[in-house]
Amino acid sequence: MLNFDYSIPTKIFFGKGKIGVLPAEIKKYGSKILLVYGGGSIKRNGIYEDITKGLKDNSIDFWELSGVEPNPRITTVRKGIEICRKNNIDLVLAIGGGSSIDCAKVIAAGYYYEGDAWDIVKDARKISKVLPVASVLTLAATGSEMDIFGVITNMDTNEKIGVGHPDMIPRFSVLDPTYTFTVPRSQTAAGTADIMSHIMEAYFSSTKEAFLQDRMAEALLKTCINYGRKAMDEPENYEARANLMWASSLAINGLLSYGKHRNWVVHPMEHELSAYYDITHGVGLAILTPYWMKYILDDSTVDKFAEFGINVWNIDASKDKYDIANAAIDKTREYFNLLEIPSKLSEVGIKEDKLEEMARQSVRKGNIGSLKPIGYEGVLNIFKEAL
Amino acid sequence: MLNFDYSIPTKIFFGKGKIGVLPAEIKKYGSKILLVYGGGSIKRNGIYEDITKGLKDNSIDFWELSGVEPNPRITTVRKGIEICRKNNIDLVLAIGGGSSIDCAKVIAAGYYYEGDAWDIVKDARKISKVLPVASVLTLAATGSEMDIFGVITNMDTNEKIGVGHPDMIPRFSVLDPTYTFTVPRSQTAAGTADIMSHIMEAYFSSTKEAFLQDRMAEALLKTCINYGRKAMDEPENYEARANLMWASSLAINGLLSYGKHRNWVVHPMEHELSAYYDITHGVGLAILTPYWMKYILDDSTVDKFAEFGINVWNIDASKDKYDIANAAIDKTREYFNLLEIPSKLSEVGIKEDKLEEMARQSVRKGNIGSLKPIGYEGVLNIFKEAL
Repeated sequence: MLNFDYSIPTKIFFGKGKIGVLPAEIKKYGSKILLVYGGGSIKRNGIYEDITKGLKDNSIDFWELSGVEPNPRITTVRKGIEICRKNNIDLVLAIGGGSSIDCAKVIAAGYYYEGDAWDIVKDARKISKVLPVASVLTLAATGSEMDIFGVITNMDTNEKIGVGHPDMIPRFSVLDPTYTFTVPRSQTAAGTADIMSHIMEAYFSSTKEAFLQDRMAEALLKTCINYGRKAMDEPENYEARANLMWASSLAINGLLSYGKHRNWVVHPMEHELSAYYDITHGVGLAILTPYWMKYILDDSTVDKFAEFGINVWNIDASKDKYDIANAAIDKTREYFNLLEIPSKLSEVGIKEDKLEEMARQSVRKGNIGSLKPIGYEGVLNIFKEAL
Repeated sequence: MLNFDYSIPTKIFFGKGKIGVLPAEIKKYGSKILLVYGGGSIKRNGIYEDITKGLKDNSIDFWELSGVEPNPRITTVRKGIEICRKNNIDLVLAIGGGSSIDCAKVIAAGYYYEGDAWDIVKDARKISKVLPVASVLTLAATGSEMDIFGVITNMDTNEKIGVGHPDMIPRFSVLDPTYTFTVPRSQTAAGTADIMSHIMEAYFSSTKEAFLQDRMAEALLKTCINYGRKAMDEPENYEARANLMWASSLAINGLLSYGKHRNWVVHPMEHELSAYYDITHGVGLAILTPYWMKYILDDSTVDKFAEFGINVWNIDASKDKYDIANAAIDKTREYFNLLEIPSKLSEVGIKEDKLEEMARQSVRKGNIGSLKPIGYEGVLNIFKEAL
């Protein structure tokens, strides 16, 4: 196990009706807040009304930044910073999934930065101070409600970049599983795939002696497998929604990666797909994952894939380890198909002409992956196989 | 899943050599500290020297309270409070295992309480303010390094009582697995049994829909089973020590019990044993656990024990569920025996004459246990079976 410094200070208020804590928690930081959210869904399902009524009743002044994109754009971040500066905002409250929360985080960090906000996305060392951030989660997927990261897209430069800073972690997040009851079938599926991908990015590491972390990763994968499809078929199944929601937070808050070497691989590849094509993040991850697995499967990785097959997919441990590994990869693909996610990039509109450019961008900071790092040739090969 | 409020703010500095962070972390709170520790082991193995050299080099003044008992006594707590008051201590630093940390926590809480410290142990509502607490862990067992609880014994009244307050949680803890290399064989075993018991107290709950938490509990149990005996046989096996150390913290910091009904059962029984006989806590837990399991095994609990057997002990899922449950209980006993812990209370000096009194004390606040609560008759029956 590698050395690590653990710090997960976000308070979580979990469960039905927990929105009631919001006014008192906000008042610990001030009385002027910016609401950051996406489309009109929170108005249709009553969440917006729940929240703003509580704010009004408690004399909390709020401004609004709506229309945050599924892949939030730097132009939207800039708008939010302007509202915060003009109104001396005390706290940025995201309502939504990862898009809104990521956007809120970078607004909060940009507030204190004198230059253009894109500078801090490209170089987190330029962040010195961050406004308090909090979130009300309405989609189980990115885990942004309990981590330090945000991902912002610049459509001018076709860049989608992740930025992290310890002070960007939400001070608190409200997780009410009933707030995800209205999440559409396809988004429930994509969210589940995103959670599973976060877990696998931590699980398939070169660090071999983090037994505890690996068993916990398997625990979370089994949770996603048990409830992903169920939540699609029974959108108001509280047990399914609650387990997926809590899994989304624990998958990426550090618990699974502390003590392990970490170098993500499928995420950087997918970031290029959605930077160029604006496809759904979780769908891109689910399509790429099994091709990536097949590509890196060899004598140096087969034991890990066999472990994955035995412990996650209950494959008979007495079989040949390559058979177990290949069956595990097949089962991973089948599960994503069960979530009604296609198996090919061409099915989501991706064409051959930009594959080389996207592959180059994927590895612009160096090789990606921990268990078996890959470079340009590897990424391009995976893209072509997946097409 | 039940509603919950999650907050685990303790910072963890984990790994070999992490003691180097100590002076800078202490200085965030002040420059006058009280060291709280047990016997002379930290002087023999060099940990005391490591720490005090760092303090002196950084002009941090320290006072010392040594001789904290394995079951820390209220008389020792009172001594610590007196030292803190006389010297305007800024932070209480425990060096050791649960005994020292528990003692430090109650000293820190008692510092601001005007009456006698035993009052706050008996009624945590009397705690209003707590001095900052931190720890350097030298024994993987109680998880006190990352939770809000302390257990204090009053030998005058034969009471051993747990007290918890959110502000009693350590601000930070240093977990260097090499600091546990010199832990004797028997204490390594008892510590592992203690960790396993914490996990099982959370696992065997009446809440059935906390799938995620149950899979994580199994992950931690498998970690203990994989490394407990190994750490006894190879005391300087870093991988084993590291996995056990991190398991000790995660077992009881709330992660496994958030969202579940919680009412501990084997711990309150064991607390009476060690209040009356001063036996090793982990040994008492390990002896009692399988007898408690057998006692509550019936149609209402058999599914949970079968799940335990299949997921933790790899028992063939196609067998009859009572056979799986009984085999799982046997395997639990066999594992504790493998840790060289006896199977009978009489083997650790416990006599029949006080069983009734201890059983009455175990349930003085009401029935104990969550999966299937038990009262006086149940506890007495378990004690007699275990004798």
